Amino acid sequence: MTDGFAPVAPPDAEARAAAEQRQASLTKPPGSLGRLEDLGNWVAACQGVCPPKQFEQARVVVFAGDHGVARHGVSAFPSEVTAQMVANFRAGGAAVNALAGIAGATVRVVDIAVDADTDPAVSTHKVRRSSGAIDREDALTADEVAAALAAGAAIADEEIDSGADLLVAGDMGIGNTTPATAVIATLAGIEPVRAVGRGTGVDDHGWMRKVAAVRDAMWRARPVARDGVELLRVAGGADIAAMTGFLARAAARRTPVLLDGLIVTAAALVAEDLAAGAANWWVAAHRSTEPAHAEALTKLKLTPVLELDMRLGEGSGALTALPVLRAAVAVLAEMATFADAGVSTAGEVAAVDLQK
Amino acid sequence: MTDGFAPVAPPDAEARAAAEQRQASLTKPPGSLGRLEDLGNWVAACQGVCPPKQFEQARVVVFAGDHGVARHGVSAFPSEVTAQMVANFRAGGAAVNALAGIAGATVRVVDIAVDADTDPAVSTHKVRRSSGAIDREDALTADEVAAALAAGAAIADEEIDSGADLLVAGDMGIGNTTPATAVIATLAGIEPVRAVGRGTGVDDHGWMRKVAAVRDAMWRARPVARDGVELLRVAGGADIAAMTGFLARAAARRTPVLLDGLIVTAAALVAEDLAAGAANWWVAAHRSTEPAHAEALTKLKLTPVLELDMRLGEGSGALTALPVLRAAVAVLAEMATFADAGVSTAGEVAAVDLQK
Repeated sequence: MTDGFAPVAPPDAEARAAAEQRQASLTKPPGSLGRLEDLGNWVAACQGVCPPKQFEQARVVVFAGDHGVARHGVSAFPSEVTAQMVANFRAGGAAVNALAGIAGATVRVVDIAVDADTDPAVSTHKVRRSSGAIDREDALTADEVAAALAAGAAIADEEIDSGADLLVAGDMGIGNTTPATAVIATLAGIEPVRAVGRGTGVDDHGWMRKVAAVRDAMWRARPVARDGVELLRVAGGADIAAMTGFLARAAARRTPVLLDGLIVTAAALVAEDLAAGAANWWVAAHRSTEPAHAEALTKLKLTPVLELDMRLGEGSGALTALPVLRAAVAVLAEMATFADAGVSTAGEVAAVDLQK
Repeated sequence: MTDGFAPVAPPDAEARAAAEQRQASLTKPPGSLGRLEDLGNWVAACQGVCPPKQFEQARVVVFAGDHGVARHGVSAFPSEVTAQMVANFRAGGAAVNALAGIAGATVRVVDIAVDADTDPAVSTHKVRRSSGAIDREDALTADEVAAALAAGAAIADEEIDSGADLLVAGDMGIGNTTPATAVIATLAGIEPVRAVGRGTGVDDHGWMRKVAAVRDAMWRARPVARDGVELLRVAGGADIAAMTGFLARAAARRTPVLLDGLIVTAAALVAEDLAAGAANWWVAAHRSTEPAHAEALTKLKLTPVLELDMRLGEGSGALTALPVLRAAVAVLAEMATFADAGVSTAGEVAAVDLQK
């Protein structure tokens, strides 16, 4: 199943150069919009056109899946919450729904490995009920990891074929910070005690159990650490594998992605490993309070747009950052140039002012 | 004119408490939305109601004014740009216009002290043509500083009376980072070389001239440093004084404000000095690259929402952050509670999971 992954061509250098040039002609001091200018140039490069177009179909896909390790006391919430939250997403009551309204995005939830029967509308890509308890057993079989990667790619295709021009992957799954942390700590070579965070809010004893679970999963994963697909199979899970396929396919299809938090970024780390260059198609929306998230962003060389101490997942961080990306596009697409507006440029100051 | 300033009552503690309680009942781990939760609670407190209402009339007022010190080589741009940009704002071609579209805000520009004749539609509150060159002379007379403070208060009244439920003050004025820096450095007690930044982008020689101008202005301001109004008169300017009146009046009228960058925050520092408690009605939208801006935020005990290396002014930072504030409101106002959605809470985990 490593078939299907290939190095990814970068965004359009010509459109980026045109965007950089256009930034310098707009009625503002050069560079004065800071990160907004970089983001606008990136969107132009992804779209291959300058000025870039405002996103018309931003789409969040929430990948829901349970994890056997949740039975081992690593989360503050019981596993049944995953299926309950799938229903909550569909009813529009979750954070991701409220945030999508502000960001101008729409939300789809897919059941990849929820430990319950869900509505057929969300379960067409389901791989299995709950991934394995990675502290003691493999998360998936070889067939299942292949199926999950293919499901994620198929979901990306469905969305892009339907006109999505910006994608966000979100996560929902009690216990999912444990495999995400194990995957990142394995790839980044960091100790469990430095990598493990509080997830949804475990207490000290829960945190210690989680460190032990991550340590055990990493021990099991060590022999396969150099093979991304095997790593997902042993210490990841179906939801993380599906996000990996989704992110790699989106990049291959030249569709920009706003990365959310820990879970999605674990998948991103594997996707960049499998499809080198995919990360050029991603912007890190935020840095969460989970320590492994920061490590993964560093390894991906991505600088987060926001730092708001968020740690919910679902795509919530990406949706909070989406209006910033929209702002970057609006600046580059809508502002007047110095010439258009009849505004003097910096070069004119010497002659005008300094002799006084 | 220090008449009219009085301590400001804080936002509603009861609504804040209700908001904190509501956050804990929403379908997300407690605290997992980080800063978004604090911001939502703050809006509820400002509005005196929980859940808070989404902003329906967010309004940016750009205060335009020239500064005599611009003739002394402290800026990369010539003074005539101020009036040209006023026209650009009115034509919708500036950054603040593009960003307002994304943020769902509207823009008004007022000529407080532009060194040119502007359209009567924007000049009804004009105090004078250009404030004085603060390195060598007072910025304003006593009558002018009183008029500028009153103009700002009147503008706040006009906007609030017209239904504005969130206000932003923006700035436009070649040379305005010099008086803003002088005011902040005087109030925060910092050395000019540590306080002075590049503004619109001066070169090394310009930066040295600017340090000298700030040092000279601070020397002139020292005797009046303990009187905010006098400080504005000697080392500020009409635009900064008008923003001071605007911010103090908005707080007195219980209207929340998103603070923009260096210039507005200099005015905020004086406004808090004159009307203690006003800062409770403000959120710092961002931290710019100007060193004095960070100093002023620290002194105001305000933590910026964004840090994107912006340094344009006009209200651009505030408008980039406004969707984050809207997101905070949407979360608190629209999300389902655990009870509504039938989702299990953290407390239920012990019984459900740990015996397995």
